[in-house]
Amino acid sequence: MKTEIPYKIYLSENEMPTHYYNVRADMKKKPAPLLNPGTLKPMTAEELGGVFCSDLVAQELDDTTAYIAIPDEIRSFYKMYRPSPLVRAYELEKRLQTPAHIYYKFEGNNTSGSHKLNSAIAQAYYAKKQGLRGVTTETGAGQWGTALSMACAYLNLDCRVYMVKVSYEQKPFRREVMRTYGATVTPSPSMTTEVGRRILQEHPNTTGSLGCAISEAVEDALSRDGYRYVLGSVLSQVLLHQSVIGQEAKTAMDKYGIVPDIIIGCAGGGSNLGGLIAPFMGAQLRGENRYHFIAVEPASCPSLTRGRYAYDFCDTGNVCPMAKMYTLGSGFIPSANHAGGLRYHGMSPILSELYDQGLIEARAVEQTSVFEAAEYFARVEGILPAPESSHAIRVAIDEALKCKETGEEKNILFGLTGTGYFDLIAYQNYNDGTMTDYIPTDQELEASFATLPKVDR
Amino acid sequence: MKTEIPYKIYLSENEMPTHYYNVRADMKKKPAPLLNPGTLKPMTAEELGGVFCSDLVAQELDDTTAYIAIPDEIRSFYKMYRPSPLVRAYELEKRLQTPAHIYYKFEGNNTSGSHKLNSAIAQAYYAKKQGLRGVTTETGAGQWGTALSMACAYLNLDCRVYMVKVSYEQKPFRREVMRTYGATVTPSPSMTTEVGRRILQEHPNTTGSLGCAISEAVEDALSRDGYRYVLGSVLSQVLLHQSVIGQEAKTAMDKYGIVPDIIIGCAGGGSNLGGLIAPFMGAQLRGENRYHFIAVEPASCPSLTRGRYAYDFCDTGNVCPMAKMYTLGSGFIPSANHAGGLRYHGMSPILSELYDQGLIEARAVEQTSVFEAAEYFARVEGILPAPESSHAIRVAIDEALKCKETGEEKNILFGLTGTGYFDLIAYQNYNDGTMTDYIPTDQELEASFATLPKVDR
Repeated sequence: MKTEIPYKIYLSENEMPTHYYNVRADMKKKPAPLLNPGTLKPMTAEELGGVFCSDLVAQELDDTTAYIAIPDEIRSFYKMYRPSPLVRAYELEKRLQTPAHIYYKFEGNNTSGSHKLNSAIAQAYYAKKQGLRGVTTETGAGQWGTALSMACAYLNLDCRVYMVKVSYEQKPFRREVMRTYGATVTPSPSMTTEVGRRILQEHPNTTGSLGCAISEAVEDALSRDGYRYVLGSVLSQVLLHQSVIGQEAKTAMDKYGIVPDIIIGCAGGGSNLGGLIAPFMGAQLRGENRYHFIAVEPASCPSLTRGRYAYDFCDTGNVCPMAKMYTLGSGFIPSANHAGGLRYHGMSPILSELYDQGLIEARAVEQTSVFEAAEYFARVEGILPAPESSHAIRVAIDEALKCKETGEEKNILFGLTGTGYFDLIAYQNYNDGTMTDYIPTDQELEASFATLPKVDR
Repeated sequence: MKTEIPYKIYLSENEMPTHYYNVRADMKKKPAPLLNPGTLKPMTAEELGGVFCSDLVAQELDDTTAYIAIPDEIRSFYKMYRPSPLVRAYELEKRLQTPAHIYYKFEGNNTSGSHKLNSAIAQAYYAKKQGLRGVTTETGAGQWGTALSMACAYLNLDCRVYMVKVSYEQKPFRREVMRTYGATVTPSPSMTTEVGRRILQEHPNTTGSLGCAISEAVEDALSRDGYRYVLGSVLSQVLLHQSVIGQEAKTAMDKYGIVPDIIIGCAGGGSNLGGLIAPFMGAQLRGENRYHFIAVEPASCPSLTRGRYAYDFCDTGNVCPMAKMYTLGSGFIPSANHAGGLRYHGMSPILSELYDQGLIEARAVEQTSVFEAAEYFARVEGILPAPESSHAIRVAIDEALKCKETGEEKNILFGLTGTGYFDLIAYQNYNDGTMTDYIPTDQELEASFATLPKVDR
């Protein structure tokens, strides 16, 4: 007799992961190392230690240790909002009349509204452990900044956030959440940093970009005693922390004997997708199983589907290490009509390498079709999803409809990374019928590829 | 050996309540009946059926059946977001250095952001079952309107919401969530109803009130074929549905052998407090146990602590039945500086009667002290609470600090009804130091008491 699967599978607290899982340990061909933009040599721990906390540097550079223990203090914090539920989307299946079984790992049930908190608390913890006074960071849509503010408030660390100006203006309430958690929030580009002033001089009317806010946050950290810079995505340490998503999902599915056929996640910098797929990809790399992994990105910022696999700057101001990744060039500025996150020009080096090895499929989707899926999902499953997460919903629905045609009873797992409570201007545009799509032309991409540095590696 | 209590106690889906619990069945002295404002006689089922769905009328009038089965369709919907967690506030206890054990039942993990969804789906279900085309309602802070929109979208019912104008303007994003769920949202008072036009003529600059929005919603329902009016609080049917909160909390506590000494909830119309305490109050009324119940209300709208226990109109336009309740008079308009909900001039007749019998303590708290507690809680426990819920947090902290003085290891349970993601203007005022308190003078209350009808019962 088959066990009945509940609407929501919650693990008990003692089933939560005790270690972060480092997928690089199971990769035969590893992601390329970060490079010093001056010497074009791999960044050393010492060099990275000027910008990042030392424990995080060690995690960033470690591509051989598969399991890294999660400190008790971080696990205590996780217990306040984790384990997150693995949800069986019974209602969605019913409405779609699909034979597919749809599951989603829901990371939105915390005040940061997303999975970002998983890495924020880890990064803040290591900063505190090192005796630092504070950290700086950038935030685009605002989820990462909120998450870091929460983690810093909990640990009594100072938190300085550079928020992409267009988000700062469109999302005053995100800013207010961060302030409630005691953070200092500055719209970027700002006059408080040299790189900010330079960018403002060149582009006085710019509404900012993630790459530019990163440059400002790094400069701010370097200019203060006892501060380091932290980043919410892209870096391998972030994917490491986010592996709690995939580990919990896999444990929950294993308990009920469910094997996902398709695993879908949205991909901006890659933190959610990398974390969700990590243990499954590990199993595949070890030859234990095979899965169909799909990365979903916005057609307006198509780093995987139309980018180049090359060394590039991680930020606009070129103050960060260079990373080998799928990228549109650090000069790429996503169209202003693009709502929500997933605006980063590059992609996690881990995911880039896995994609280059043909282990992940990538799809680009347009935002009106994403919001159509979001609204459909909201009405059926009750949860108002973040625009980012809705990219994964779009493809999950598409795959479920394919199963309806073929009659296949596939298990589809997707990452529902967050809620859309701070994205209602975008929903309003969709409701009003004023939302538009944008696909960059080949010429535009050629122009931004021209900003790629010449690195012969 | 004592079982260790996890951070969050989740019931399994088959431990969720199968019946609503009707506390009136265990009350020897029942709440007074609703009266027809014309005849001053108890409202009959037929009279009520013109305004409300028939199954809900039956529930409203039934004060003897203790357990009413929850239909499967409603239980399926509940499974999408329930059971809600009973959380042990370990971190809060640690920071307060209190020997008290603090628990909260968290109802905010759904897109409506509050417990309101528990009754919204029930009311929408009965409307659908009756073959109605749609429902009308009012909303103040917006939680109820959002909840009803979600329930109606799920059941494919039309939903027409009259939103208190000040909230409509201050919370455009709440409105947008409702629109995303397909609801029509009208700021109240409006020119679309007779009562709205009358109120606007008398008070052209009014920013609206809950009592006024109720009148408009009722008139709207009466003017359309296949529509009924639904209400998110005050009515006994609503407390009945909300009993799922208390039942889940009690089951979870029973499982771990925890008996709450103090049970705290915020009280506006009484839906959350009534639902949270119902099964505990039932046990006390049956002589099985004793608890210290505390209702917390805003000092700016003090219906229990300074109101009169009398028959009053439920709405400003006097189109609804009259209820015997603790009330400030239907002419009472809460101070404009008051943030969030809990603005209703009256109180649930059930809670009013229990309070009158001395079974509940009531406390009024001022809003700056409420936001101080809210911010403290957010930073320690991670969740950004709704202003309404923060009234209960304030008193839970006060009681925990008393335990610190006396050394008592009391079990404190409070209702965390919702999240504050749509209340950030209020948080901003608090962060900016511009938030003020307001306590109505005796003269002001005398003036609003003068609006009480003369009913000799």
